[in-house]
Amino acid sequence: MSTELFYEDFHVGQVFASAPARMERDRLVQFGAEFDPQPQHLDEEQAKGSMFGTLVASGWHTASLSMRLQLEAMMNRIPGGAMGAQVEQLAWRHPVHPGDDLRARIEVTAMRESRSRPNRGLLTLRTTTLNQDNRIVMEMIAAVLVPRRAPSC
Amino acid sequence: MSTELFYEDFHVGQVFASAPARMERDRLVQFGAEFDPQPQHLDEEQAKGSMFGTLVASGWHTASLSMRLQLEAMMNRIPGGAMGAQVEQLAWRHPVHPGDDLRARIEVTAMRESRSRPNRGLLTLRTTTLNQDNRIVMEMIAAVLVPRRAPSC
Repeated sequence: MSTELFYEDFHVGQVFASAPARMERDRLVQFGAEFDPQPQHLDEEQAKGSMFGTLVASGWHTASLSMRLQLEAMMNRIPGGAMGAQVEQLAWRHPVHPGDDLRARIEVTAMRESRSRPNRGLLTLRTTTLNQDNRIVMEMIAAVLVPRRAPSC
Repeated sequence: MSTELFYEDFHVGQVFASAPARMERDRLVQFGAEFDPQPQHLDEEQAKGSMFGTLVASGWHTASLSMRLQLEAMMNRIPGGAMGAQVEQLAWRHPVHPGDDLRARIEVTAMRESRSRPNRGLLTLRTTTLNQDNRIVMEMIAAVLVPRRAPSC
């Protein structure tokens, strides 16, 4: 396990990156059948008649995989995890296809101490999920609470 | 299949509701292990030491299940599906536990014709996901493009 990350370890402009993870074809259609049964997520044949014309991942599959990539990039180093997350924007910019290799890039865009919880700080994170061609497939802005270091007095 | 829904069939204040779907315990931990491996999503024992103190669903599992509920409530009646969705807010208000029965309520909060695409209209939808105690577990505001009826001239 890498070093723990407290509020004091972050700064605006800081960037974290994950390793890539593959969007496997079979998992893509399983996820589609369970959570997002629209023609473009079910199989190649049905996808032909959809607005995409080809099989693409559910946006919620990309978002869920991006959660894991965010944990790997840095969130699993925050003691107790990133609490009270609230998403302020979530947009799917480009389709994700079977076999795509996705990775997450997380930038700290703002930070402030919490008024209501003196032992926590609030980070604004901009997460972009990119494919193997460096194309942004998903973009998310989220606010998360992270713990502050105990004061050494 | 129910009647198709075009832009002209919507109005501000209109509400659609889904039937409930159960958040099964085994599926909850499978999803957690694959996409959101934090102690509170992995098993009862590890969850005890988490900030929740008990097993809870990943927020992305709740969001993915809510996608299916939204399709069932009305989105699968939109010809070609709800295109170009962009989420403007997504917040998890209350934990989802194993065995919870979730349902979606979708309210049309705004609508306008698309300037760039004359054959489409833009809806703003507020989706709340509720549990069996009528408690809001998730709230989402999203903008989606839907087709307009062909003019009869």
